[in-house]
Parts: sequence; structure tokens; C-alpha cells
Amino acid sequence: MSAIANDNFERLPKNYLFAEIGRRTEARRLRHPGEAIIKLGVGDVTRPLAPVIIEAMHKAVDELASKETFKGYGPEHGYMFLREAIAANDYKGLGIRPTDIFVSEGAICDGGNVSDIFGKDATAGITTPVYPVYLEANIMAGRQIRFIPCNASNDYTGDIPSEAIDIIYLCYPNNPTGAAISRSRLKEWVDYALKNGSIIVYDGAYEAFIRESELPRSIYEIEGAKYCAIELRSFSKTAGFTGVRCAYSVVPEELGKFHSMWAKRQECRFNGVSYITQRGAEAVYTPEGRRQTREAIDYYAGNAAIIREPLVELGLEPVGGVNSPYIWARTPGSMKSWDFFDLCLEKAGVVITPGVGFGESGEGYFRISSFGEREDTAKAMQLLKSLIYSL
Amino acid sequence: MSAIANDNFERLPKNYLFAEIGRRTEARRLRHPGEAIIKLGVGDVTRPLAPVIIEAMHKAVDELASKETFKGYGPEHGYMFLREAIAANDYKGLGIRPTDIFVSEGAICDGGNVSDIFGKDATAGITTPVYPVYLEANIMAGRQIRFIPCNASNDYTGDIPSEAIDIIYLCYPNNPTGAAISRSRLKEWVDYALKNGSIIVYDGAYEAFIRESELPRSIYEIEGAKYCAIELRSFSKTAGFTGVRCAYSVVPEELGKFHSMWAKRQECRFNGVSYITQRGAEAVYTPEGRRQTREAIDYYAGNAAIIREPLVELGLEPVGGVNSPYIWARTPGSMKSWDFFDLCLEKAGVVITPGVGFGESGEGYFRISSFGEREDTAKAMQLLKSLIYSL
Repeated sequence: MSAIANDNFERLPKNYLFAEIGRRTEARRLRHPGEAIIKLGVGDVTRPLAPVIIEAMHKAVDELASKETFKGYGPEHGYMFLREAIAANDYKGLGIRPTDIFVSEGAICDGGNVSDIFGKDATAGITTPVYPVYLEANIMAGRQIRFIPCNASNDYTGDIPSEAIDIIYLCYPNNPTGAAISRSRLKEWVDYALKNGSIIVYDGAYEAFIRESELPRSIYEIEGAKYCAIELRSFSKTAGFTGVRCAYSVVPEELGKFHSMWAKRQECRFNGVSYITQRGAEAVYTPEGRRQTREAIDYYAGNAAIIREPLVELGLEPVGGVNSPYIWARTPGSMKSWDFFDLCLEKAGVVITPGVGFGESGEGYFRISSFGEREDTAKAMQLLKSLIYSL
Repeated sequence: MSAIANDNFERLPKNYLFAEIGRRTEARRLRHPGEAIIKLGVGDVTRPLAPVIIEAMHKAVDELASKETFKGYGPEHGYMFLREAIAANDYKGLGIRPTDIFVSEGAICDGGNVSDIFGKDATAGITTPVYPVYLEANIMAGRQIRFIPCNASNDYTGDIPSEAIDIIYLCYPNNPTGAAISRSRLKEWVDYALKNGSIIVYDGAYEAFIRESELPRSIYEIEGAKYCAIELRSFSKTAGFTGVRCAYSVVPEELGKFHSMWAKRQECRFNGVSYITQRGAEAVYTPEGRRQTREAIDYYAGNAAIIREPLVELGLEPVGGVNSPYIWARTPGSMKSWDFFDLCLEKAGVVITPGVGFGESGEGYFRISSFGEREDTAKAMQLLKSLIYSL
């Protein structure tokens, strides 16, 4: 490979998870034409946008239609109307300022881009099983990776490392495992970071799914976190924005140079989010917006309960599905992830996600997403239950 | 600075161009309250969106309101309806495939992000004066910069370097100088890149402003360019999308590993552009869309002529304004850029952009943008003309 190319790309894992799922699903469809296939694999929302968001976006589109109300470039870090709404609602009482908040077009982008402010020689601690963006962005940047295994022995929240790791990526409620983190365990991570001078990148994209009131909703509920943690949040799952694209990062002033570096990074390499999108996101914080978006989250939470129950009954020790939209469970009889995937697809016509797609530590597990239709979800679980009992 | 931080940020030039313009403009407003100030500084559009785009975006918003037509995650590289429209219209007859096109949320993002696929030790050739993103993204990545001076002696298109530079950033029609590049000079750059194994990043964000038919509109009009060039285009200035955010990069399959690395980079660190935005961009390519967006471009071109004419008359040797929305000219009596800025602001109430804000080679020059209102533009030029004659 030429010296012009970033040869770190050669170190990227060959990950074709969703492409491979698509390929096998299509092959099954061709083998059994006309037979229904229920997809509970991909973590994409299916409920329409809330009426109050639709209304706000129509209004914003109309503003762009006339000279008097037209909007050109917006502020790179987001319109203050949205940054203020976020600070006042999502961080009420936590001392996060609107200027600590940076509006972006997606948590995937933030999760990757935040890597730009860290040095090449910094070490990156990645919990595993893992959603690929953190791992891949750090490999692209040429960093050394330290894997932090998450499993039943540590409630899927990782053991605090004995060595000092520079950047720690945590995601709770977790994708893919659906595990939530307790206040006391999160405090252990914050204390670790403060002691070692580490930075925690805390992905809270699934915060809206937290139901148990004793769980922390933001890392900034933990004392000292403002001095060591960046938090990422998204409207994707909270408000059904996976196709609209809006998220935000919180990089508090207390992080000093990291705050100013991130501000500079976004000013230089980013140019703000669509005005229409930001007006839509603002509407999420109105009383109707809160009520209407809550309805969709409750719908998915209802699905999660329907998925979780038979898995408990079957002894597959499911994690998640209480404070998260994902359910993670053992395959029956410790089957390989892909073998179980094939079995579910062939015999039940149900698409799940093989755990090994999130790294080797996911082998022998599978993930089910609660973002489908209620009726499909219930039917799929009925089919899976019969299938597993028949094994 | 801690080892965790990317210390390349310390090498970034302290560039507060638009912030400083804003500060001085505000101070003038306070000194002379009630006096009009005409801003011809920032390159932001002012015409509203075309009706056909507004209609398409309303329709897309409505689709997101109902379960049957809702759209979640779109393809990371853009919806095929848009990639096909771009290939068929902007690259007709040039052999660019829809799969060579990657839809993004802005040319600024692409201009910075494309740096991720290049190695740290690759050298970056940056024409100067320069719009900051290319320079800053390469400094952040820790690359060695080779400046390529653009001035009257080389028609503002740079001298072909005698040494081999790995990555060459070219922008034509140019921001800030407004210069266009001839087919023969562009062929020299392509030949240089092919000979040296360099990659050209060709920023064509202002392509829609090209009026002279003999000028190349795309680098792919030059033989061999598909083997050495990436092209960036944007809907920002073409269709007034500075607040809507949509652009695209062309990385042809012929670029081999660079094509697959960019595809991978976008899959990992990006998650596609708003469905609403992409439907709006698609409408640009309808017959009404072409006609309606053309009207706005013609309007700005009319402004450019109004700006250019008095500068010719005054002997300030303006560049640009024929095939571009920017006019670049010498300050009268070789005044320093900021001194001339202060003079225009104080005596005429007109905001221009000091050339030195685009790098040292811009000292003694200024930029005027044609994106203002027609009446304001004409009045500002009248005021500047009187001011300069009075010196």
C-alpha cells in the first residue's frame, strides 16, 4: 500500500455483520418464496415522528422559502435555542452550560470524530462486545487498543483495569448487551479516570430507555465527572431521528483544553446541522413533544418485555430489555452465534443478530432488538420459543 | 499538554478572521448607532430556497409522519435516488457511476474528513491564499504542509511543483480569490499527479458559477483524472443549502484502495444525511429545480458584475466575479488588509473580508462576496468607489 494511504485501515477487522445478515436473509427468501420473515436484527426505529416534531419541521421548511425568514449557515456548534433546551431539560441541576453542548448530525459521527482530539500514542480502552465505531475509529487513528471484557461476572460493566488507560469508551444502556450501569460502578469508573488522568467517552444514546429510577441517566450525576468525561447523546432512538440525523456531545468547560480542542475541531471540520432538523429536535422538549416521544419509547419498552420474558423462561439468561431496547442472551446449548442465526432464520423465519458480530466475546450469544412492530415481535417470540423447546 | 491530547492542535494557526470581523463591525455599530452597515464579507447565501425544493421537503416531512412511509436509517453513502440523479446530471458523459458518489452533510466536512484516508507521513500541498479547512485538517493530522503560492504570475492557479507532493488540494472556482482554472492548466496538475502518484482533492463547490464554456466544470473532464482525483461538490451555493447541509464527494472506483477506504470511513464514522435534505437535493435536478436554482445563481452573478466593474475602473486588478461569486482585489495604495477593512467600515459602513485572513499571501488584498442583496451591493460599491477616489 502506498505511503499516501493511511495504512491503519489494513488493521480494521473485516466486519460484514449486517451485510452478511442481509445476504443470508435474502437467500432464505429465495429458498422459500412467499414465506414471511420477521426482522428483529437491526436496531432501527419504526414508529413515525411525533406530530409536534412534524409541525416544527414544516414550519422550518416554510421559513426557508421566503427571503425574510431564510436561514443560511447556522452556528457550527448548534443554534442556541436547541443548546439551551438540551441544557435546561436533559441536564437540569447538573451544572452543564449550553456552551458545553455541541449539536451534531449523529452519535456515530461524534463517537468517531471525538478521536481526532486525542493523540496518536494515547491508549484506547474498549469494552467488548462492542458496537464497531469506537473500535474502528481508534484503529484508523493508529492507536493501541485495550479490550475490557464485559460479561455476567462484572454485570456487563467491565472490571476496572489495573493499568492506566488514556481513553475509556463506555456505553450505557449498552449496545449490544442492553446492560445498564449502576451508580456505584459508574463512580468507580469516574474515580479511575480522575486518578489516572483518563478521559471517559460516555455514550448515552439509549438514556431515554432507563426505567429504574436509581440508575444514573448521565455520567455528570457522578461527582467529578465534568473533569474527566465527555457524554454523547442522540435524538435517534429518543425521538425516532435515525433518518433525520441529530445528536449532541457534551464536553464541559471543566475539561479545559479538550473543550477548546473539540470546539475548534467542530468549527474547522463541521458546519452545523440542518436548521429544519434542529427545529424538529427543539420540539422534542415541549410538553407535547415529551409526551408524544414518550409514547414511542413505551411502545418499544413493551416489545422489550415481550422479548425478554420467554428468554428468561428458557433459561437463556437475558441481559437488557428492562432499561434498554436490546436484549442479549445465550444461545441454546451454547450453539455458535451464526449457527443459531441460521436455525432461527430457516426454521422460524426470524432474523436475530449473532453476538459474535460484536467481537469474539459475543460468540455463543445473540441480540434481539425491540424496535419492530408489536404484532411481529410477539409472533416472532412465539416462533422462537417453540423452536428452542423443540431442540 | 498531556499525552492524551492531540498536540498537533498547538500548531494550528490562530485564525479568528470572521470573529474579528464581527467584533470590529459591532464596535462600529456602537460608535455610530443607527447608521447602516452593509455586509459583503461572509460567503453565505441570502436567496430563499426554490419552490420545488420546498415542496419536496414538505413531502418528505409528511412521509416521516406515518408508519407506512416512515424512513429510519438511510444508506450511509446516500440514497440511490440522489446518487443516480447526481451521476446522470452533474457527470453526464464522464463515466462516473452512482456508486462513485458519496452524499454528505457538507463540503467542509468532506474537505476535512478526506484527510482520514491518507497516511500521517504523506505531504499535503495547499494553495495559498486558502480557505482554512484543508490546511487545518492536515495540521490536526500532523502532516507536513507544502504551500503552493497562487498569484497573478500564475493566474492564481499555482506553479506545478518541482518536488513530488502526495496530496494536492485545488479549489476552482477558487475561494477566496474567485479565480477559475483553464483546461490546459488543470491538465498539467492531473499529469503531475499521475506522474508522481499524487492524489488531487478537487473542491468544485462553486462549479455552478462557471459561465465561460471553455472552462472545465469537473476535473473528470481531464483524461486520467479518475485515477488520481477526488472531487468535492456542494448544494450550498448551487441551491442555497448552507443552512440545509448537503454535499457530495466523488471517489471513483478507479482510485482503487482510496475508493474502498473512503467507503469504509463513511460507513464507520458517518451515518448518512437527513432523508428530508436528500429529497430536497433530488428536486434540484428536476427541470423546475434547474430553472429555479439557476435564477438565484444568475442573481448572484449579476451582483458579481456590479462589484467587479468599479474595481477594474479603479485599477485594483480584480480576480474572480466572472466565473465565481467572489471578487479578490488589491487594496488601494497597497494598504495593509486590515487597515483597508477598517477604512471601509468606518468611512463607508461597508464590511469586506481582509485578504490576510486567508494567509500571509493575502496581505494587501481584500475579498468581496456577491451573495448579498442587489440593492445593498450596488450601494456598497458606490460608497467604496467614492471612498477610494477620495484617498
